[in-house]
Amino acid sequence: MSIAEKMASNQKQIAISEFFEKNKHFLGFDTLNRAIITAVKEAVDNSLDACEEARILPDLSIEIRRVPNKKDHLILIAKDNGPGIPQKSIENVFGKLLYGSRFHAIRQSRGQQGIGITGVVMYSQLTTGKQTYVKSKISSESTAIEVNLGIDTRKNKAVKFSQERVIWTEDDEIIEHGLMIRTEMKAKFQRGSQSIGQYLKMTSIVNPHANIKFRYVNSDGEIEIDEFWKRATNNLPTQVNSIKPHPHGIHLGQLQRMLKDSDERKLTSFLRQNFSGVSSRAAKEVCTKAGLNDGAKPKLLKTEQINQLLEACSEVKFLPPPTNCLSPIEDLLIKKGLSKTIDSKFVTTLTRSPRVTSGNPYQIEVGLIFGGSIPSDQQVQLLRFANRVPLMYQQGGCLLTQAISSVDWRQYGLEQSGGKGVPKGPATILVHLASTNVQFTSEAKEAVASNEDVLQEIRKALLEVGRNLRRHMKKKKKMAKAQEKFDLINDILPAIAEKASSLLNKPVPELSATISKIMNAVIMEQTTTWDKETKTTRINGILYNYTSRPRSYTILMNWPEKQGAVMIDNERGGRKETIGLWAWKIETLQPGERANIEFGLDNLEKGDWTETEVFYRGSAEVIGASKLDEKILEEMKNQNSDEVLETMEVITGDIDETISNVASRSMLNESTSDEIQKESFQTTLFDEEEEV
Amino acid sequence: MSIAEKMASNQKQIAISEFFEKNKHFLGFDTLNRAIITAVKEAVDNSLDACEEARILPDLSIEIRRVPNKKDHLILIAKDNGPGIPQKSIENVFGKLLYGSRFHAIRQSRGQQGIGITGVVMYSQLTTGKQTYVKSKISSESTAIEVNLGIDTRKNKAVKFSQERVIWTEDDEIIEHGLMIRTEMKAKFQRGSQSIGQYLKMTSIVNPHANIKFRYVNSDGEIEIDEFWKRATNNLPTQVNSIKPHPHGIHLGQLQRMLKDSDERKLTSFLRQNFSGVSSRAAKEVCTKAGLNDGAKPKLLKTEQINQLLEACSEVKFLPPPTNCLSPIEDLLIKKGLSKTIDSKFVTTLTRSPRVTSGNPYQIEVGLIFGGSIPSDQQVQLLRFANRVPLMYQQGGCLLTQAISSVDWRQYGLEQSGGKGVPKGPATILVHLASTNVQFTSEAKEAVASNEDVLQEIRKALLEVGRNLRRHMKKKKKMAKAQEKFDLINDILPAIAEKASSLLNKPVPELSATISKIMNAVIMEQTTTWDKETKTTRINGILYNYTSRPRSYTILMNWPEKQGAVMIDNERGGRKETIGLWAWKIETLQPGERANIEFGLDNLEKGDWTETEVFYRGSAEVIGASKLDEKILEEMKNQNSDEVLETMEVITGDIDETISNVASRSMLNESTSDEIQKESFQTTLFDEEEEV
Repeated sequence: MSIAEKMASNQKQIAISEFFEKNKHFLGFDTLNRAIITAVKEAVDNSLDACEEARILPDLSIEIRRVPNKKDHLILIAKDNGPGIPQKSIENVFGKLLYGSRFHAIRQSRGQQGIGITGVVMYSQLTTGKQTYVKSKISSESTAIEVNLGIDTRKNKAVKFSQERVIWTEDDEIIEHGLMIRTEMKAKFQRGSQSIGQYLKMTSIVNPHANIKFRYVNSDGEIEIDEFWKRATNNLPTQVNSIKPHPHGIHLGQLQRMLKDSDERKLTSFLRQNFSGVSSRAAKEVCTKAGLNDGAKPKLLKTEQINQLLEACSEVKFLPPPTNCLSPIEDLLIKKGLSKTIDSKFVTTLTRSPRVTSGNPYQIEVGLIFGGSIPSDQQVQLLRFANRVPLMYQQGGCLLTQAISSVDWRQYGLEQSGGKGVPKGPATILVHLASTNVQFTSEAKEAVASNEDVLQEIRKALLEVGRNLRRHMKKKKKMAKAQEKFDLINDILPAIAEKASSLLNKPVPELSATISKIMNAVIMEQTTTWDKETKTTRINGILYNYTSRPRSYTILMNWPEKQGAVMIDNERGGRKETIGLWAWKIETLQPGERANIEFGLDNLEKGDWTETEVFYRGSAEVIGASKLDEKILEEMKNQNSDEVLETMEVITGDIDETISNVASRSMLNESTSDEIQKESFQTTLFDEEEEV
Repeated sequence: MSIAEKMASNQKQIAISEFFEKNKHFLGFDTLNRAIITAVKEAVDNSLDACEEARILPDLSIEIRRVPNKKDHLILIAKDNGPGIPQKSIENVFGKLLYGSRFHAIRQSRGQQGIGITGVVMYSQLTTGKQTYVKSKISSESTAIEVNLGIDTRKNKAVKFSQERVIWTEDDEIIEHGLMIRTEMKAKFQRGSQSIGQYLKMTSIVNPHANIKFRYVNSDGEIEIDEFWKRATNNLPTQVNSIKPHPHGIHLGQLQRMLKDSDERKLTSFLRQNFSGVSSRAAKEVCTKAGLNDGAKPKLLKTEQINQLLEACSEVKFLPPPTNCLSPIEDLLIKKGLSKTIDSKFVTTLTRSPRVTSGNPYQIEVGLIFGGSIPSDQQVQLLRFANRVPLMYQQGGCLLTQAISSVDWRQYGLEQSGGKGVPKGPATILVHLASTNVQFTSEAKEAVASNEDVLQEIRKALLEVGRNLRRHMKKKKKMAKAQEKFDLINDILPAIAEKASSLLNKPVPELSATISKIMNAVIMEQTTTWDKETKTTRINGILYNYTSRPRSYTILMNWPEKQGAVMIDNERGGRKETIGLWAWKIETLQPGERANIEFGLDNLEKGDWTETEVFYRGSAEVIGASKLDEKILEEMKNQNSDEVLETMEVITGDIDETISNVASRSMLNESTSDEIQKESFQTTLFDEEEEV
């Protein structure tokens, strides 16, 4: 026997379950700390997916118990109110790898591979020798089924140990439908940033429709952690539909197979029946471009013809695939989730329109939280999500991180060495990728693989929230500077006047006119705060006329009318300018005078509305507000517009220029002005932010 | 039908090949750029593994051809002189996923899963519809076999299109044994840091026994790249043996299975036969601790008993597993590879002893290259290797990167923001993990998964090369400082003397005695350079006596005697002190006098020897050399020692103290000395390095 034959004689087929048993780290079971999080994740993913598909508002409960007297043994009990799993499917769902319903479906879902929960059963068995207990109740049967099962890894098949039908009650109530799993595994329970608690908290941010309970019981049987994340909305995520593949996302091998399997008689109808986005006209165009007869029989096409067909597809323009296969969270719900979870001063979020990469629809959502209690001397915290699932590991190797790192955050006021990498500062950045086909780097689904289209799309979204952040910071900074100047004049001038008067033995002169002359500006001060007592959002604005002439303005502010807010306590009255924009007329404000605008917003929760934009109509510039662009306003009115807020932000962009114009006409003598300038440049942006 | 039943009715089994076809990015086919590198990698891994197992010095040839008139179509032709594959195995090796010989074997190898090359065939078929051509010749047959094949992904089975026996000749010579693959895929060819060229170059560093040819032919049929990395050694890597699992690395589920399958009659013999590291005594101790009878029949043990057995195993001390399952590169070969590939001033490498993590033997090797042409304003380049395979992607998510990032490199003279992360500076860091079970984060095998033991072991190795780097930089810096002082005195004193003399109209006094008095030090200057002309390494040393008294010393230098170097042109003679250490007696060096020591080293190649350590015996300190520790020397002699070089470095550690002692006795007036100090502190280490 030659060495080649000898070597070949050792080769054999490996079962997929043997493969994953040995490579359990591919599934997320690489360390004891991570093992339990992975297990929770798989259970939660399945529950949320099942509830979403069955249109049930999910109530999840996760319990972790330390096994007494056994080192690193944890019991996981996961329970949901989902549709349950029929008896005959249980063995396959929990005991067979690569078994599932979502592998071939093109739509957004958490699970897809049919690996996750079977991996948990396998890991438990491998590390503790124990079976996994499953209890399932479906609504069409009167009793629940209880099963204890394991896996024969050499055959990739479930091994059933016991099976029984029972009445499932909880707190004396009969459970209509639901699923419960109990499994024991070698794992370590930990707290902190990579913990089950953190995972569930993040899950609740991107699944605001879910109730999630979490309990940790220590080895003495004491409940150490007992948390409850209540749902923030009763609306289920938009129902997603499976779509057909798009011709721009198809590979030759797949097309070959589809053609071979097809019973269609005509090539054009094959194209229209099997793909999304293919109109009758487009189907004909493809045939023409490929040099094929419209009526060619799909089954009989030769490889070279299939090649031509595919090339023709790449040249023809199709309709984009339908995007009802996606279910974004929507920026307002993200904002809500973030504001509730992370205490901060400023939140900006953005849901981009769906896009398509290689025929796969996807959608990007981002959020940025700034200030408040977030520490300013550390790396920005990244919250990564894919199809509403938090990604907790492999941050370094993830496309979402790569996108965040590729933005030069210095231009938006965050620290970043060399303009690359994860920035530093008191901020948190959230990225959510919703897609029919999230390409992860491994089965553990913790990091998204490279994709240039998606990267660029995330970048665009981040640049936009970055600009919002810069605008916010500049506004705060400029306001602080104007305030500083104002304070200075108010303090120093009277002191000088007093000193001079006492030296000259004359009475102290009246200074307010002089101060106005020096300031020579109209200033708008505005705050948006949450009033705990009345549970309303309070907006306060004061317009100061520090010029020597009387002034008249119309002041306008945006407010979340579309979000269902109700305006209250608006004593100054005014009138609705358009949806989400209110206007107040300020008649003849005399030099040195001020005007107040105050109102409240009801029907909102804390964090729903934290920043109000102020605009003005009038001849002289107003520091702290931006001039209203009548043309854009007109467009907004015509559209009766959903995009009021968005367009508003475009207008707001002008505020920077306005302020710097005013600032350049320095009213103080140069040296003083320089000093102020210098001082204010020496304090970093973050310090200023903290002090505001 | 309830919703649960409806949902369940959509579930089905997915074939492993369908799974990987859809998730081709798990296998490294995520982008067109990466696809071709992954394909090359799989082919090269297989060739090197096969040659190593068959004990053949590998000659590999990789050719990439652009297909004319087809966008992003590349042909890969990979050829080796390995043992070949027998006809009956070809279909399974290339057309069946999870088929291979190395999955269950516990030993170091590149491939393991039986996925790689089948993935290439699958990707080619998917993207171009083309079959893969395989030609194989094994030595026991007179003709080669040619096959064209594809994959039926729904069945995970090869589809054979044609098969023929041929005579395989190249350049009119009949090929005895070897393998050739030709496949066409959608992919992009690129140059730069993530290119086939770079991949093969890195491969040649860690496989110095391989000849590797690489050719790139553009779409006009012109050869654009034609490279050849010649083998640096004719020694094959140590032959590795498969070992049995170690009791400390076994999971309960595995143990259960092994017991069930066992035909042994007695538990003790089961333990001794099926595990490595289990002595007769240890086997008995396990049984006692587990409360089981030595003679218990393995097949009949109950779950609870198996549990006790495993727990007993964790408490008993066993012999470590044999480490002949590992094949490290060895530091001298790494040094050679690095010096040849990267132009630099300083190379330090280290091969740690084998260690065990959860019963798996592994071994760490690291290297650090500094200075030379490496740019100093960029992140340090990381070269990651696992089982002699370069890792090109997912650097951010890799344990090896994590280990490098966890070291505070600032203490070793590299820049690093916050003492964490990949450092900056003119350096390259290499890490090689050799293991029987490298845990990658995915099937693409580009990043190593978390493991605390391995992380700590890499850290230890890095700290050691870090210390070597610091020592090197300090030495250079101190030498430069002494030189600066010397130059200053030599320039300034004569100038003052001349000026004074001319003012006083007196002759200029003789100054050398004065200078000696001020310097008051003995200085050793030494250089190690490569002489292109004669292809020898030249060592030059000059000992200056800048004191006012005559001095006597024995000067010693280390040299690579063990590496097979031959000492030539040693005119001063001297004598061998011990292996790798030569000594020269310098009798009575008068004040102001100097003594030269010069010799050459033959039988080495460029980069083999770039730094020589200098030691001295004598009463007064010598700047630029370290005092020889006679005790350590004695030990070295007794050991007749393989560790001469290593121990040498321990001795060399003292040099820093010596120098700083001397430096503290400042001979210049304070202000001058301060100025020098200041200046030299202002220039950064890197600048100094660049200037040296």
